[in-house]
Amino acid sequence: MTGTRTAEELDAADALAEFRTRFVGHDDPGIPAYLDGNSLGRPTIAAGERWASFIDQQWGRRLIRGWDEGWFEAPLALGDRIGALTLGAAPGQTIVGDSTTVSLYKVVRAALGLRPGRDEIVVDRGNFPTDRYVAEGIARETGATLRWIDVSLGAGVSVADVEAAVGSRTAVVLLSHVAFRSGFVADIPEITRVVHDAGGLVVWDLCHSVGVLPIELDEWGVDFASGCTYKYLNGGPGSPAFLYVAADHIASAQQPIQGWMGVRDSFAMGREYEPAEGIRRFVSGTPPVSAMLGMETMLDLIESAGIEAIRAKSIALTEYAIALYDEHLAGFGVELSSPRDADVRGGHVTIDHPAFGELVGELWRDGVIPDFRPPSGIRLGLSPLSTSFAEVEIAIDRIAAGLRARLG
Amino acid sequence: MTGTRTAEELDAADALAEFRTRFVGHDDPGIPAYLDGNSLGRPTIAAGERWASFIDQQWGRRLIRGWDEGWFEAPLALGDRIGALTLGAAPGQTIVGDSTTVSLYKVVRAALGLRPGRDEIVVDRGNFPTDRYVAEGIARETGATLRWIDVSLGAGVSVADVEAAVGSRTAVVLLSHVAFRSGFVADIPEITRVVHDAGGLVVWDLCHSVGVLPIELDEWGVDFASGCTYKYLNGGPGSPAFLYVAADHIASAQQPIQGWMGVRDSFAMGREYEPAEGIRRFVSGTPPVSAMLGMETMLDLIESAGIEAIRAKSIALTEYAIALYDEHLAGFGVELSSPRDADVRGGHVTIDHPAFGELVGELWRDGVIPDFRPPSGIRLGLSPLSTSFAEVEIAIDRIAAGLRARLG
Repeated sequence: MTGTRTAEELDAADALAEFRTRFVGHDDPGIPAYLDGNSLGRPTIAAGERWASFIDQQWGRRLIRGWDEGWFEAPLALGDRIGALTLGAAPGQTIVGDSTTVSLYKVVRAALGLRPGRDEIVVDRGNFPTDRYVAEGIARETGATLRWIDVSLGAGVSVADVEAAVGSRTAVVLLSHVAFRSGFVADIPEITRVVHDAGGLVVWDLCHSVGVLPIELDEWGVDFASGCTYKYLNGGPGSPAFLYVAADHIASAQQPIQGWMGVRDSFAMGREYEPAEGIRRFVSGTPPVSAMLGMETMLDLIESAGIEAIRAKSIALTEYAIALYDEHLAGFGVELSSPRDADVRGGHVTIDHPAFGELVGELWRDGVIPDFRPPSGIRLGLSPLSTSFAEVEIAIDRIAAGLRARLG
Repeated sequence: MTGTRTAEELDAADALAEFRTRFVGHDDPGIPAYLDGNSLGRPTIAAGERWASFIDQQWGRRLIRGWDEGWFEAPLALGDRIGALTLGAAPGQTIVGDSTTVSLYKVVRAALGLRPGRDEIVVDRGNFPTDRYVAEGIARETGATLRWIDVSLGAGVSVADVEAAVGSRTAVVLLSHVAFRSGFVADIPEITRVVHDAGGLVVWDLCHSVGVLPIELDEWGVDFASGCTYKYLNGGPGSPAFLYVAADHIASAQQPIQGWMGVRDSFAMGREYEPAEGIRRFVSGTPPVSAMLGMETMLDLIESAGIEAIRAKSIALTEYAIALYDEHLAGFGVELSSPRDADVRGGHVTIDHPAFGELVGELWRDGVIPDFRPPSGIRLGLSPLSTSFAEVEIAIDRIAAGLRARLG
């Protein structure tokens, strides 16, 4: 494949190529290749303008009046927009506000509360640490038991893995759509069906899929989900996560962190906690309005490009990375830790080699920036609207040169 | 007093007057009086520059490298700075990260866990709704009992109130330093002593005192505290709260929302949750870096002005507001709901009248912006570094004119 089409040709033929110019630093000669959009997406240029206007106008001049003019509704309005553009979620089921960790805590607790008499939370060993730690904490505090699916970091959870793990004690199954390390894509609709057949509920972590893979939460019958907004939604470091609760569960679900922004009438400041009727009951405290601005400008770009076109370019980028890996890196004993089958591969490609821990420091100093995940993995995070094929080529060339210098 | 010194004279004599020019919109003719700094502080002008540089440089060019260059430490570093400048807290006890609601949830749960065998959480009826709702939720999930102190919205909690409420069942007492409605200042050192004598722990909500009143958490022996940063710390709408855990409790305290940013080595991505040794164990998810920028610029101003000078101006502003109330509003039957004694009065003054609900809408349209708290309270939130005496005069004049038009 690399023999037939060069990075230059691929970029020239890329229908989404123009989007790259909408991001800060895309032409910075000090950053020849940024391949970590799956950990922290670049800022859009529009984000800078949005923040400037927010500080000078909405916050600076509307001041407290801003709460009546959009801020109070922001967790729900932005949630609905993320739901419509990236989650396949009808309005009224998605909010934005807390960190992914806090959001997962809320939805796992809520799911557990909907399955009284069942005491198992199913988690996989390869899931992202925060997911596992949240589940451990909840198990400790509620007396639930964790049932582990033993999937290695380099793999993903299959339907059969879940079939073997669930049963009459299963309350909640907490899994990631795209495995953070391998990039393996779990089969949400089938796994959700298996869990439901066993009488349990699913919580899907969408951190590594939202904005880069088509998702159809409503159609797939998902119960709960959460995901972060600083990767492919380019919200900025630590921008707040979203959480999703299927319409059917909202009225009966109870989340543990009761706050004044989640009640029927926040400004009545009532005597007892009366949860709002809709998804607002999952809001706790005051929403971080300023931290929501970055992702809004990225959603504009996603809306304009369309998620199907984004997924198509994502596949083309990862295919190209794997072709270059075959040609330039496999010979050094570098391992491909992501699936070759594009159908079960997300937006990033992980390659492993014992020398990578040391090599990544050198690359970063030169502005060639992939991600590193211990013990030995380089993750190439290819963000379709901001990553060019040329960047992939530069990074693989530099990795090959680094290995050549070490291994001869 | 108003007979002796005019707003013009008071502003001319104000040693902190110059600080007002550091805030966006201070000279906007469309906002003749902003008296809601106790609900949402104005942005500093430096905040706009800070955000622009953050987006273009730190986020835009350093990209993922930013985590190694300060972001990872930001919750602790910013916490230490808030602690040093405003809380009387030695380093290593304060972090910034979640909303006030989530932060209160964490510290109340942690405090409860430190008092096994005791089952009462003491809360007052006049406390801010989120405090009461958080306590209700925790009581429901842990089986603890709420013991209510019956203080009306217009009052504050006295040492005697607490003495009467605590006993051998008291695990935690959750109170506010400055009452959100009346502005009454609770006696933290004495109340803390009373609670400790009964064997319980205190959690102080500092939302309405941090940045405007001197606070000495270490000296006063406070166990836990939390407070918001968008009032007198001018962090912007929904900027993350801080939480404080006294050094003595950190090693034994366990917080419920276990996340990857609170462990010994986040990037080892270890198999089991191993909490960090220090205050980092109270961090849960990825910190909202972009939402921390505004308060940093305000802390620069607080450092430069000094908290004692800020408190002195705060007292002068509230004294002036009360003098104008006596002169212009008392005659209309307006009630003063805040203490006359400056020693037990915080940074805001609340006045009540049945016509205020309607009147506030008119004032806001004209850029005269106090706060409104149902059923009938106007809160004059006087933020010492950004509020002038002239603004207080304008607001009281407009309120008087509005009442005159209605009541003749």
